[in-house]
Parts: sequence; C-alpha cells; structure tokens
Amino acid sequence: MQLKTIGEFGFIQRFAPKFSQLVDQKDGGIGDDCAILQINDALSHVVTTDLLIEDIHFLKDEITPKELGYKSLAVNLSDIAAMGAQPLYSFLSIGIPANTEVEYLDAFMEGYYELSEKYGVPLMGGDTTKSADRLVINVAVIGQGTTGDLRMRSMAEDGDVVAVSGFLGDSGGGLKVMLDGVERTPEALSLIKSHHLPEPMINEGLWLAQQAGVHAMMDISDGISSDLTHILKASSKQATVHLECLPVSKMLQKVGEQHDWNIHGLASGGGEDYELLFTVKCDAFDQLNADFQKKFGKPLYNIGEIKKGEPQITWMNNGVEVVESKHGFDHFK
Amino acid sequence: MQLKTIGEFGFIQRFAPKFSQLVDQKDGGIGDDCAILQINDALSHVVTTDLLIEDIHFLKDEITPKELGYKSLAVNLSDIAAMGAQPLYSFLSIGIPANTEVEYLDAFMEGYYELSEKYGVPLMGGDTTKSADRLVINVAVIGQGTTGDLRMRSMAEDGDVVAVSGFLGDSGGGLKVMLDGVERTPEALSLIKSHHLPEPMINEGLWLAQQAGVHAMMDISDGISSDLTHILKASSKQATVHLECLPVSKMLQKVGEQHDWNIHGLASGGGEDYELLFTVKCDAFDQLNADFQKKFGKPLYNIGEIKKGEPQITWMNNGVEVVESKHGFDHFK
Repeated sequence: MQLKTIGEFGFIQRFAPKFSQLVDQKDGGIGDDCAILQINDALSHVVTTDLLIEDIHFLKDEITPKELGYKSLAVNLSDIAAMGAQPLYSFLSIGIPANTEVEYLDAFMEGYYELSEKYGVPLMGGDTTKSADRLVINVAVIGQGTTGDLRMRSMAEDGDVVAVSGFLGDSGGGLKVMLDGVERTPEALSLIKSHHLPEPMINEGLWLAQQAGVHAMMDISDGISSDLTHILKASSKQATVHLECLPVSKMLQKVGEQHDWNIHGLASGGGEDYELLFTVKCDAFDQLNADFQKKFGKPLYNIGEIKKGEPQITWMNNGVEVVESKHGFDHFK
Repeated sequence: MQLKTIGEFGFIQRFAPKFSQLVDQKDGGIGDDCAILQINDALSHVVTTDLLIEDIHFLKDEITPKELGYKSLAVNLSDIAAMGAQPLYSFLSIGIPANTEVEYLDAFMEGYYELSEKYGVPLMGGDTTKSADRLVINVAVIGQGTTGDLRMRSMAEDGDVVAVSGFLGDSGGGLKVMLDGVERTPEALSLIKSHHLPEPMINEGLWLAQQAGVHAMMDISDGISSDLTHILKASSKQATVHLECLPVSKMLQKVGEQHDWNIHGLASGGGEDYELLFTVKCDAFDQLNADFQKKFGKPLYNIGEIKKGEPQITWMNNGVEVVESKHGFDHFK
C-alpha cells in the first residue's frame, strides 16, 4: 500500500496512539500548531517544526533566497503566534546541493536574520549538511507562554463567532499567478509577494490570547476550509461560514475578476495566508474588534458561527446554503 | 563562489557572529553538541537537531527502515548524552516520496518507537510532508540537565587525560564494507550493524557529567581526529593522542587485517561511532574508570592528554610522532 492511499494524516494516525503512552499528562498539544511542554504551573514552552523541500514547498526560480529565508522562519513563528505565545529561539537545519552559490546562502540567511531580529528570536543551533540535489530546510522554534493563556484548537464553544485577522486568499492567488503563468501586473506581483513574504501574527496572537472572550485559535496554513475543520474536530462542534463575509483584498478581487478566478474558493481553500483563525464568545466580539483596531490599526473579520453538531462546515452565500466542489461553491440541491 | 569552496563550517562562520547579537547572555552552546537554554539557575534545557537525507546520510537499499528510524533518533540522543543531559521530547519532520510504501513507514516508526520507549522520550510533534524524490528526515530533541553539570567542548584543562567510552572505527568499517563491496562475513555484518544501529550513551553521559573530574565532553560523530579538534579549538588547548591506545574491536581488527585496511585511520577518522569523547583531570582517571566499570560493566579508554598550545593534535605511535595523511599515519619527517 502506498502512502498516497492513506495520506499524511492517515500515516500519523498509524503511530500517534502508541507514542501517546509515553507523553506526560501535564504536556500535550499533539494535533495543535505547537506541542505544549509545561515548565511549571505558570509557564509552558511551545514547540513547532516545519520542513520545506524544493519543488514541493517552493520553486527556486520564483522565490528569491532572501524571501525564502524569511518565509522559512515566518511559517514557524506563525505556529507560535497561533498558540498565543512568544517565540524565544530558532533552530535551522539546511541540506544544500554542492553547486549552490555562497551568495545564494548569504541572501537566505539575510532574510532569516531580518525576521529573527524583528521579533528578537536568536538562531541557537541547527545542522548544515549536503543534499543530493534539492535544497531542504527544516526550522524548529521554541516559544513560551503563560500556561493558562495558551489557545488550542479544542477550545471552541457553542455560539462563538468565527473570526480571522486579515485578508484571505492573497497567498493562494499569488501561487495561482505563478502556476497559471498569469500576466504580472502590479496587483499580480503583490499577490506573489503575499505568498513569498507572509507576516507572522506574533503580537496579534499574544494580545488575543490575553483576552478572556477568545477561545480556540490556530493559524491559517491550508485555508479555512481545512483549518476550521481541525478546530471543529478538536472541539466537537459544527460551524456555519458566510462566504460573503470572507475578507478579500482589492488586489485579489481585481486580478481574480480579470482572469475569472473562483475567489471564494481561493479565500476558503487557497492556503498559506498565515492569518489567525479563532473563535470568540459571541457578545465579546464587537468590543474585541474595537480594541483590536485601536491597538493594531486594522479590523478583525466575523465570518461565521460555531454551533452544536457533527464536525463540519455549513457554507452560506448571502443567506443561501451552498456546497463546496472542485470548482468552488454550488447551490445546495 | 560555490559552497564547496568554503565548506559548511565556512558558511556557518559567515552568519553566526551576526546572530550572536540576539542571544541572551545566560544562554549559549552554539558550536556545542546542543544549544543551552537556561530555564532557571538550577536547570537548563538543551536542544539538538539533525538532518538526514537519502543518498547523503543513508542508502535506502542498505539500511532497513526499522534501523533508519532507530538511527534517526539515536544520533540526536547522542548529542544530548554528550552534554550530560536527560532527553525529554523529540520532534520528527519527515519528507516522503509519493511512491513510498506505508509498510516501510510503519517499520521506520517501529524503530523510532523502540528507542523512544527505551529512554522514555515521547514524540511530541513534527511535520509530515511530501518530498520530490528522496526521503528526508529531521529530528529535534529537547533535553534537560542541571545547569552546573552540563559539559561543554570548551572545558578541557591542561594535563587532562583524553578518554573515550568505547570502541572506535566499527561504524566507519561498516560503511567501508558497504562502499567497497567487501564480502559479508559475520564480522563484516557486525560492523554494518554498528553503522546502522548506534547506541546513544545517555546513561553514561549523565553519570560522567556528575563526576567532578570530567571536564570537556562531546560525542564522536566525525571521528576523534575532527571531533577532538573541536574540543581543542573551543578550549584553546593542544592534545597528544597515542594511536596504539585507540580501542579497536576484535571484529574490526579481523576484517581490517583481511582486507589490508588502515585501521588507525578508521579508528581516528571513520566517524559515526557515537561514543563519548571527554577529558578528565589526570589524577581522577583511574578511580573514574574503576567506578565506571563497576556501574556499566565496561571500561573507559585513556587515549592521550591535553596540554598548553595551539589547537592541534600530535599523533604518536608507540612513542614515535607520526603525521596524518590521506592514507593513514606516516612517520613525521
């Protein structure tokens, strides 16, 4: 039987239960954005790691080495942000083909450093080795948070608002520009930039985790269609999402209309937005949004609600139920 | 300029000083087997990560998946052992070609679990993803130690004995059996097993770190010729090593004599022994060795001594100075 038959989640399910016997009760977080390792009653470490392989996660001809260095760290910091924790240390393993130019690597480290400096996260170690042909990058980040403030996927409650911290679909749009060979207008180039230089929501995540009304939280790496389902499964809840409420940037709107893209499909399933997806006690959302705008100068977006039921998303478009298909969302029959 | 011109250490030197500005004074360990992250005055976390890439670090046709799973964790636990710390948690990133059999992955996880269970180290997270063609494995391990007990490469002192915890060269001999297509006698197969199933010296490392006479310590991953030089550079010391004192197993002796191998070369430079290399206050060594034998049922080996001077190794063979060459050790002219 080949891996593609059962998929990566199917593979993880084959060994995870056995390993869980070894886990100390005070620790946890398997299936969350980070593992949670309790240091003491007050403080926990959170740990995440992400593997990026050339031609699977990035195309060397499209992303500059500086952007790649930045993004390699950013996707990990985003997982720390999703827990509501502060990143402390990073570790970089890099497998390098022999013919790689040192200047390429210097630029990679420049991008990695830029983000390290921005959030005060030192690179503390790693592994530098040869690779047969493709560039391989693994980053691990350790963060720290107040044990009681950490937010997990399992914390959604009935009646919660489903919210996101920013535009959805720009990164997926950027990938589509590259893969479809779309004309590189200024807007199309901005979408590519969103794909190559995601900004981890560190300060936003820390702040949200300190607000009592905020329940479940994660970052959007695969698109809300997949990611919200993780929250629903972990919390044993159902959700309704209103497509017309998904925040879409003007540039995605413009490029999408020019090329007849399925914009709702990109906003819900494009992936790699690295915005925060979270649930909030219903009557706390408006004040939270006002406070968030005051602090960060940008709004939160209410895109749906949590309810009792089997873990699944009901999609609505202007009050009419629709179903997700390969081509986007169709009227429910 | 290509990477091969400056090598991996040359590359690290290009960015490490810049990043060191971001490191908190209480933390450290860059250049050691693990990074040291101080939790409080008494306790520190230590962190290591190792990247293994198919056709660079292992040959899929030679190593069984179960052995590969075991070894992927073992090489990291060995770094924790080298600090004198207790391993606590592991994180596994794995990039898998699409045509990989699930049974292969199950066996890999079985080997990984065997060692996890042996030392009570739970797998707490990671990343499972596609790879274009080659299997890619990155393991990160977090350990914990008493801050004052941790052993670093910089701790060697004048007059120390240089010691190792077991046989040298078996693993390098096993690799040579595979690469040279040597006949697979029972002894040759045992050498291959040493290469594929290294045993991390966790308990030995913890015990040694609690002995006051033990100074610098590291694990032997590249061979003592390279690894002892790391200790000498970090400690600003010189060493003399006596080739006739290097502990060589009977099986390496036998296979080596059959095929006219340079056994001193394998013992000093073969690599991947994953024994401990450490320095001990001269007058403490005999008692330490007696206590070690009592506790672990095997001896330590005194292979040389530390002295003042530029960081380099003087090699002696039965009282005569020799120099390292491509073919082994030649008389010093």
